[in-house]
Amino acid sequence: MAQSLLQQIQQPDDVKKIPEEELPALCEEIRTKLIETVAENGGHLSSNLGVVELTVALYRVFSFPEDQLVWDVGHQCYTHKLFTGRRESFSTLRKEGGISGFPNRAESPLDIFSTGHSSTSIASALGLACANEIAGKKDCHVVSVIGDGALSGGLAYEGLNNAGRYRRNFTVILNDNKMSINRNVGAMARYLAVIRTKNGYRNVKNGLESFLKHIPVVGSSLRNALARAKGMLKNTIYHSNIFEEMGFHYIGPIDGHDIATLERALMIARDADYPVLIHACTVKGKGYSFAEKNPRVFHGIGSFDVDTGEKQLSGDGYSDVFGQELCAIAEKDPTVCAITAAMKAGTGLTQFARSFPGRFYDVGIAEECAIPFAAGLAANGMKPVFAVYSTFLQRAYDQLIHDAALQNLRIVLAVDRAGFVGDDGATHQGLFDPAFLNSIPGLTVYAPTYFDELRRMLQKAIYEGSGPAAVRYPRGVEPQKPQKLALSGGENDFDLIPGAEASVLLVTYGRLFAECLRAAGLLAQRGIAVSLLKLNCIRPVPQQAVEKAAEYPNVFFAEESVAAGGVGEHFLRLLTEQGFSGKFRLSAVQDRFVAHASERRQMEQNGLDAESVADIITMECSH
Amino acid sequence: MAQSLLQQIQQPDDVKKIPEEELPALCEEIRTKLIETVAENGGHLSSNLGVVELTVALYRVFSFPEDQLVWDVGHQCYTHKLFTGRRESFSTLRKEGGISGFPNRAESPLDIFSTGHSSTSIASALGLACANEIAGKKDCHVVSVIGDGALSGGLAYEGLNNAGRYRRNFTVILNDNKMSINRNVGAMARYLAVIRTKNGYRNVKNGLESFLKHIPVVGSSLRNALARAKGMLKNTIYHSNIFEEMGFHYIGPIDGHDIATLERALMIARDADYPVLIHACTVKGKGYSFAEKNPRVFHGIGSFDVDTGEKQLSGDGYSDVFGQELCAIAEKDPTVCAITAAMKAGTGLTQFARSFPGRFYDVGIAEECAIPFAAGLAANGMKPVFAVYSTFLQRAYDQLIHDAALQNLRIVLAVDRAGFVGDDGATHQGLFDPAFLNSIPGLTVYAPTYFDELRRMLQKAIYEGSGPAAVRYPRGVEPQKPQKLALSGGENDFDLIPGAEASVLLVTYGRLFAECLRAAGLLAQRGIAVSLLKLNCIRPVPQQAVEKAAEYPNVFFAEESVAAGGVGEHFLRLLTEQGFSGKFRLSAVQDRFVAHASERRQMEQNGLDAESVADIITMECSH
Repeated sequence: MAQSLLQQIQQPDDVKKIPEEELPALCEEIRTKLIETVAENGGHLSSNLGVVELTVALYRVFSFPEDQLVWDVGHQCYTHKLFTGRRESFSTLRKEGGISGFPNRAESPLDIFSTGHSSTSIASALGLACANEIAGKKDCHVVSVIGDGALSGGLAYEGLNNAGRYRRNFTVILNDNKMSINRNVGAMARYLAVIRTKNGYRNVKNGLESFLKHIPVVGSSLRNALARAKGMLKNTIYHSNIFEEMGFHYIGPIDGHDIATLERALMIARDADYPVLIHACTVKGKGYSFAEKNPRVFHGIGSFDVDTGEKQLSGDGYSDVFGQELCAIAEKDPTVCAITAAMKAGTGLTQFARSFPGRFYDVGIAEECAIPFAAGLAANGMKPVFAVYSTFLQRAYDQLIHDAALQNLRIVLAVDRAGFVGDDGATHQGLFDPAFLNSIPGLTVYAPTYFDELRRMLQKAIYEGSGPAAVRYPRGVEPQKPQKLALSGGENDFDLIPGAEASVLLVTYGRLFAECLRAAGLLAQRGIAVSLLKLNCIRPVPQQAVEKAAEYPNVFFAEESVAAGGVGEHFLRLLTEQGFSGKFRLSAVQDRFVAHASERRQMEQNGLDAESVADIITMECSH
Repeated sequence: MAQSLLQQIQQPDDVKKIPEEELPALCEEIRTKLIETVAENGGHLSSNLGVVELTVALYRVFSFPEDQLVWDVGHQCYTHKLFTGRRESFSTLRKEGGISGFPNRAESPLDIFSTGHSSTSIASALGLACANEIAGKKDCHVVSVIGDGALSGGLAYEGLNNAGRYRRNFTVILNDNKMSINRNVGAMARYLAVIRTKNGYRNVKNGLESFLKHIPVVGSSLRNALARAKGMLKNTIYHSNIFEEMGFHYIGPIDGHDIATLERALMIARDADYPVLIHACTVKGKGYSFAEKNPRVFHGIGSFDVDTGEKQLSGDGYSDVFGQELCAIAEKDPTVCAITAAMKAGTGLTQFARSFPGRFYDVGIAEECAIPFAAGLAANGMKPVFAVYSTFLQRAYDQLIHDAALQNLRIVLAVDRAGFVGDDGATHQGLFDPAFLNSIPGLTVYAPTYFDELRRMLQKAIYEGSGPAAVRYPRGVEPQKPQKLALSGGENDFDLIPGAEASVLLVTYGRLFAECLRAAGLLAQRGIAVSLLKLNCIRPVPQQAVEKAAEYPNVFFAEESVAAGGVGEHFLRLLTEQGFSGKFRLSAVQDRFVAHASERRQMEQNGLDAESVADIITMECSH
């Protein structure tokens, strides 16, 4: 059997050696590889299928890593990984010890800059370009690829604002697929739609081609031809628009699946000595009918069946239960509003948006905007609930302090994906919110373990007390709940499950309570009696819980959070002020980032699964 | 003596009663009041002098608080305060127990939304407007006033992006004074300059006037006239520009010191049912020659002499020493770069910018952009130093994690105004950085007390170790240093000053070390011997320091930081793991915001001055 086209690509420049007429076959091979791998491992499918031709064109025009490429968000880098020495390890995608689903500097010198969160790429690419200028590397070209969704983030605008001024030879490729993760929103999205409609890319493509056929397509001679043809260029393919006004030379809109057109546009950008923005229109999910039809479902997905496009069904997760309960509350209370930052489906708000369109707001990928917006709603008597992944809430830390807590405004944060997030890995872990929320005066934080608690705590967060309140809950489904477990269902700020004559107290909250319950069972088998203290409210820490804990000579605290600045350290301080002088031990994530693996494995790696907790307590108690 | 015009304004609507011909006199009265008060109390002068006419016009056209007004940043709200029942208390501006220098919801129902940090006002005003819509309050108009400097922040763009889409009757006033705190930067600033030049506001004013003279200037009839004249309006005063493309109807540029023109533009906006952006050009410092000539100096200023414009001289502060040392380092090392977020002078970088223009970057009020930009520089071999106030670094929390720490890139943070900041008050306190930096894996944080330590630690932050590093130092000047004090000058990660047979250890860092040193003196007089442990590196906490501390039965920890999640709680946890079972007490800022007062008073209020520390220890030791 002949060697596949993809197999012929051993190093980046090999992409240039594939004959033009074989490129469609190469793209098809790549798509097959992407679909098969993601069907098996889960991952980001739609975004990767959308940039196959774009990636091929980039590798044919530029020379990486001499030139430098930054992928915004990074969830579209799979073809790039296939071209950069990771074809054979591609089956390990997102698996423990395997390659990451995002660009990762630690993984390859061709992953110039790690990404995962949105809208950073223009700023970081500009930093790379400025460094090259200082170092006198004039021929190194820096390219940033950013989606139209990421353009709704203010950080992208800040990048454009600075890049347009610095006037480096610097290329931004706007990968416009009319989507962020949900359908894209905001004035900018509407504006892009106007450009697309007004300047249908066929005409522009023709204009581009008629212009280019006069020019020999070779490096420096192209540059000279360009210099001569500047006026003509301006009239045919550049349009006065928002990007031009921000200091960029604009090329577009062009067909992002037409490799020849892409290559020509990229060559113009490569040989220019000013910042260029190429507006390429792509189709999210391109080439896989199920994904083209339903790009959102195939944006980030678990395993699925290639032939039917059907994914494994699992039961309701925390996000679903949150969404259902919020709808029930909003049904009765016309002042309840919901806000998302481009994560309507992911955060369980699809039904809310349908039932209460007048009270549903998608602000785009703009978490920092969501908070003052919510605070404005609250200041005028509404009850806004902002549903957001823990990792993205990091972006609104200042606004939480400045716009919500300082003004004592009741906005509610539904903090989804709190704790380990599994295969998305280090950039997406929800391990910081207990610490950064902890530092904010006047904030209340609830941490449900079970669905009934989530429902009750959401009610409390909306209706009880004052100031901002958060409910944090993990990714996935509810842990099994022992039938005769006597808990307050989130009604009380903490639940104590005393062990007979226990001298050991195990304190925890959220999903880990289920692990600690199992740990207590394991310890009982080993003859070690343990009491369990389950915090339902982790901020402020309930004073009574501290008093109870102070009665024990041995206190163990387990939390799905960074250790430094988390709830455990704060609990210890209160405990010490209570006169506690026993033994204290904290199990949490110690000063490290946690790479992709299953959530269970991430718990094990950090000593937070039932077995590890039981072992640590056993060891400490045998001293 | 006749009652002054300002005295006639007892409530907001009284501004409407002042005859038009008396308005210039009113504005002069206001300016005199502003200049005299700021000369006495310190404060923001230039920005407030720039918006006197604008504020008058706003109060003549709108009815507050039925209509709602949000001041972006809020450092231009003094005239607003004079109009809203705070004329008599105005002499208490920024003094303990007096009125705040920023809008403050707790101070007046007319301070609709508290501000202090930049670029939030469009998002929060949109929230207010959406709430009014849900509540069916159709006649309530929401206005946001935002400077051109604040427009360099991505959050402002996110606000525009959402407001342009939602299509409320909603007004943004762009107060364009060609400045942020320093001269404004970026593509947007250049773009505004182009608008100003192309459409000199005289013409537009004439166009506006010729249009308006056909219309009776009365509420609902104006509305009708407007509806009829829509086409005409579009041709005369609206221009296709970036704001129009973002969904706003644009009016401008107009003279922001011409009350009649302002009023007319505001009436159009008030009676429109779509979002309007009014571009008003103002002069920062208007009406006070020293401030007009040098608006930056009079932006935020301490006491000064009204007649000469001269301010009290004080010696070099931490910012100056930082700037000098960085210049010395950059002289020898061509890879050292400096970054500011619109705070060149405030952070001490003026000389650097002059000496090394090719390695100096002002990214605008865009802290979140500064970090990936710095990380990009670092990834290509540069040594970027980002000088930023502690309170504004809060805005880059996610980027510190995602773009710097996760990629283990050595960027250096020069964290200025760390700790209490005095009269700027609650919005500007640098009390969170020890906590939020604490939570980030792989980050190093240094905390100098004295200038020589600042110099040495800056060197270490740039050249030693890996990953991001911060040096945090306070506002103001160096505390007095006892001559025979034996310290390592920042060379060691901690310094221990043992007291003879001391059973009490006092642990601290940064500026507070000087207080604790004094406290130790006071305690010695009371017969209580104390050892002092001065942390120079507060993250990671030096293991040896913990071991030393564990030898003492009584450990007191004092820090200029929020208590929850700060260094003290973390230190206690390490101490406990070391087997410590003595007494521990933490003095820090307990779950509260700290209002404006002198820095000394803020220390006293939080038990952190020498006397309080000595008293707490005396009390604990007598138990």
